[in-house]
Amino acid sequence: MIRFFAPALLAFVPASAAIAADPPATPAAVVAAAPASAWRAIAAEDLLVMTIEGGKRVVIQVAPAFAPRHVANIRALARAHWWDGTSINRVQDNYVVQWGDVTEKKPLPPGLSPTSSVDYVRSIANVRLAITPSPSVDAYAPQSGYVDGWPMAMDGDGAWLPHCYGFVGVGRNVSPDAGTGAELYAVNGQAPRQLDRNIAVVGRVIEGMAHLSSLPRGSGELGFYTADEKKVPILSVRLASDLPDVERPRFQAMDVASPSFAAYLHLRANRKDDFYDRPAGGVDLCNAPVPVRAAP
Amino acid sequence: MIRFFAPALLAFVPASAAIAADPPATPAAVVAAAPASAWRAIAAEDLLVMTIEGGKRVVIQVAPAFAPRHVANIRALARAHWWDGTSINRVQDNYVVQWGDVTEKKPLPPGLSPTSSVDYVRSIANVRLAITPSPSVDAYAPQSGYVDGWPMAMDGDGAWLPHCYGFVGVGRNVSPDAGTGAELYAVNGQAPRQLDRNIAVVGRVIEGMAHLSSLPRGSGELGFYTADEKKVPILSVRLASDLPDVERPRFQAMDVASPSFAAYLHLRANRKDDFYDRPAGGVDLCNAPVPVRAAP
Repeated sequence: MIRFFAPALLAFVPASAAIAADPPATPAAVVAAAPASAWRAIAAEDLLVMTIEGGKRVVIQVAPAFAPRHVANIRALARAHWWDGTSINRVQDNYVVQWGDVTEKKPLPPGLSPTSSVDYVRSIANVRLAITPSPSVDAYAPQSGYVDGWPMAMDGDGAWLPHCYGFVGVGRNVSPDAGTGAELYAVNGQAPRQLDRNIAVVGRVIEGMAHLSSLPRGSGELGFYTADEKKVPILSVRLASDLPDVERPRFQAMDVASPSFAAYLHLRANRKDDFYDRPAGGVDLCNAPVPVRAAP
Repeated sequence: MIRFFAPALLAFVPASAAIAADPPATPAAVVAAAPASAWRAIAAEDLLVMTIEGGKRVVIQVAPAFAPRHVANIRALARAHWWDGTSINRVQDNYVVQWGDVTEKKPLPPGLSPTSSVDYVRSIANVRLAITPSPSVDAYAPQSGYVDGWPMAMDGDGAWLPHCYGFVGVGRNVSPDAGTGAELYAVNGQAPRQLDRNIAVVGRVIEGMAHLSSLPRGSGELGFYTADEKKVPILSVRLASDLPDVERPRFQAMDVASPSFAAYLHLRANRKDDFYDRPAGGVDLCNAPVPVRAAP
């Protein structure tokens, strides 16, 4: 993608991309050319469909392998229609958009799992087998890479999902509280990786992030909307697996073990095309998101 | 800052912060407690005041030491009132907000400096003397740190400003074009550091970033607003030094050689307080912005 072309010059892009003899030279071209075998369907029970004011749809993919107890709670909350009628209550610039029950009095459904800080990090044993290493160093972890469709940070003991742009975590009070999953937030700026291992990351926004990131910032402390500011109504939150078949969104994530992902990752770290003269030679974990697409 | 407290618990924060015997335990507390000697005034000729629709003010600090020819052009464009009546034409989620003359036909003022890719990187000689090293590794540069109020990436040959959140760069066409400075953009998501050394970074937004980051995303290619979408009018862009004294904004940036900045940087990399149990032990260059404040 030639991203800084002036609008009038955009007409050149398709022509340039159409030189069939060359291998794809940009990450976007690699993704567009990836064969069906490079894609894996995302399970319907891992898709949370949030509809906010104006009928705007935000789809979140949850990560049960990384946050099993929080994700179990989130599924139970969705099945109880618990978020219906709650709201987005906080938008702090370059940090998070946060939603849930602003009254803090709405009873939770029965049977939620207890959670603790143990849930922030997963045991390393099975992860090592499947990792696609990141090509670059990470300021926040001795090792990083991609596992089963997710970026991942890792040390000798465990693995955890990073707080990347669009990633969703669980609001909580001071330790030892680890949150139930009822209060959620999405990252809307530079990855606040200092939160890694201090809070549960449960998934990522895969559609409609712009509906959250373009919301007005709150003027209260920490970006909470004040009494004078309009909270954004949440109309409903459902698991895709609980929707009628015709209404279910269907998504695929790129297989991080595929040649397409390897080519994509290499190009994210080494841009060199009509626009880029000087490849960086590296890429931050949060700056090479796993490609996700609507199922064709 | 205890950032994930539910709203009802915010009342605890001031009480906790008031335990006078303890040293400041959070980056925000260090900044709040920094003495006057830790702050340096930003020159009025380095402040670009952009007023957009609704009278919303966005203040950009330019970096003449890092991008002298582009900054000279930007000052000339502001003095010619060149941006008055232009517009914000592109908002791409998790990438950039871009503004300038959408018609691409508005004549530029005479006397602008020629630019080239040489302008993307500064000679290293003087920079080394003043660097405050980053405590962490950087995926995009062998060395990084802070110089004269700015974050900085560096290799054996040169130093350059990184594309961090809120940083402002110069739109251009394909190489060898290096842009005049008339087309500008601000980063609105995860730092797109692959652009470093491929494009001129000229400054950073120090006030009003939320006015840009909360704009509706464009639905056209690369996030450009389509013909059906409203471009955001730019009412005026002025250098603060050209404004009447009473209208001039006044800002200060923290001295990166001060003990306060060292304490701030240490805590950004090692959060440990009522909310954080597990310090990261590192911090990305773009996740420890140099503190800036309105002059008291």
